[in-house]
Amino acid sequence: MDNPFFSATRTHQTAKNSLLCIGLDPDFERLPAIVKQDENPIFKFNKDIIEATQDLACCYKPQIAHYSAIGAERDLELTIDLLKSLDIPVLLDAKRGDVGSTATMYAKELFERYGADAITVNPYLGLDSMEPYLSYADKGVFILCRTSNPGSSELQNLRLEDGKLLYEHIAESAAATWNFNSNVGLVAGATKPAELKRIREIVGDSTLLLPGVGSQGADVAAMMDAGAGGGMLVSSSRAIIFASANADFADAARNAAITTRDEINQYRIAA
Amino acid sequence: MDNPFFSATRTHQTAKNSLLCIGLDPDFERLPAIVKQDENPIFKFNKDIIEATQDLACCYKPQIAHYSAIGAERDLELTIDLLKSLDIPVLLDAKRGDVGSTATMYAKELFERYGADAITVNPYLGLDSMEPYLSYADKGVFILCRTSNPGSSELQNLRLEDGKLLYEHIAESAAATWNFNSNVGLVAGATKPAELKRIREIVGDSTLLLPGVGSQGADVAAMMDAGAGGGMLVSSSRAIIFASANADFADAARNAAITTRDEINQYRIAA
Repeated sequence: MDNPFFSATRTHQTAKNSLLCIGLDPDFERLPAIVKQDENPIFKFNKDIIEATQDLACCYKPQIAHYSAIGAERDLELTIDLLKSLDIPVLLDAKRGDVGSTATMYAKELFERYGADAITVNPYLGLDSMEPYLSYADKGVFILCRTSNPGSSELQNLRLEDGKLLYEHIAESAAATWNFNSNVGLVAGATKPAELKRIREIVGDSTLLLPGVGSQGADVAAMMDAGAGGGMLVSSSRAIIFASANADFADAARNAAITTRDEINQYRIAA
Repeated sequence: MDNPFFSATRTHQTAKNSLLCIGLDPDFERLPAIVKQDENPIFKFNKDIIEATQDLACCYKPQIAHYSAIGAERDLELTIDLLKSLDIPVLLDAKRGDVGSTATMYAKELFERYGADAITVNPYLGLDSMEPYLSYADKGVFILCRTSNPGSSELQNLRLEDGKLLYEHIAESAAATWNFNSNVGLVAGATKPAELKRIREIVGDSTLLLPGVGSQGADVAAMMDAGAGGGMLVSSSRAIIFASANADFADAARNAAITTRDEINQYRIAA
């Protein structure tokens, strides 16, 4: 059976001609004054962004720290409920990683409390720490492989005695033993096209979550060339949701989303 | 200047003659019926446990998933407030790991919203992902090095081309470049005494957080021998807080904490 999350994102990608995944990372300090007075200001902000961009995004990716930092769990719940009512897939970015008994609690938090369709997880503790997430066969689980931050090579590019780099080992494990429920994707930073290309070679047509476009400055042409050959969710957050700091933020987000989608498609067609 | 968290835990260790760190992982399903009717049942449970064991623990370690899984953020806030009113250090176990801009939000969640004195973090994204936590010079930051779960060797014991194991590389980085604010500790599973001994050799007298005693079955004698030579916080959770499933849970927790503390001290004195 096809995984519901990967299937749904493909449906939205086709219908909307868009690989864009919009990240909902609503830093309260940066919210426009017009929404700050709302009872649930973060939800109000997200709602306006979602309504202005829903025909442009194949999924949305709330990053949980931006809610939990200020006790805005309710805003996150409302945001996810809204996306579900619109039948748009929700990838909840939490990067959890803990021993099995605790991972079971995190899985409950993300999949049951919040109702996420997919999540991100950290592999450092090994397969048994990820099994509580992977056992939800109808959910998507994106494992951190090669992240988009400047210092990501410090550990992820360590060379092992067999000649492989650590992130290559993780990609191989994800493709081989960790994907027993056919629900594994990988996080592969768009800012590292050479590594992204290598990951694509290892995992075949598996879906990759590609953060780094927009504020983090990834080269879209290089990313699209390196990532071609399988599923891609191209994530952009701040460059879209904070395209304007004023009352026109939703329109500005729409324009930024159109520009980003079109730039992706330009190289998608060429590839 | 001495780090306030490490200094405070040492003070409590001396005053109480105890290396025991009690983990507050209150699985709601396992709570005694007598507390389940309370308005804040998890806080009520924790409060009774804390009041029964506060003279036996050098710090407490709430594991955040057990609260966020069921929306019990308020119970966690109340628990930490209680511990602060008793002047007992709080190590909030969250194992966060994300890129810098998001890590800043997680640091805000853990240190500012909840007021934790120390936290756990995951190193897989590299130093820049940990800097937002490490920049809080007056807090303790425990970096995952060698975890206590059965599958932890899968990645942590990968051998690098220079002959070191991955967890050894992480211990070396933690001791060398990551500890610029003298606030780094390491998580070293008590279930792996050989690796624990190696970590102690690498990091000198730095403080180690040792999970695995109790439900996870670590050998206390082997752990105390391997970990000797520096700071140790010996963590036990379920074996103490769920020592009884009945109305006598707090007394049972006290008895289990005494037994654990005394077993640790037996080998502490001999070492």
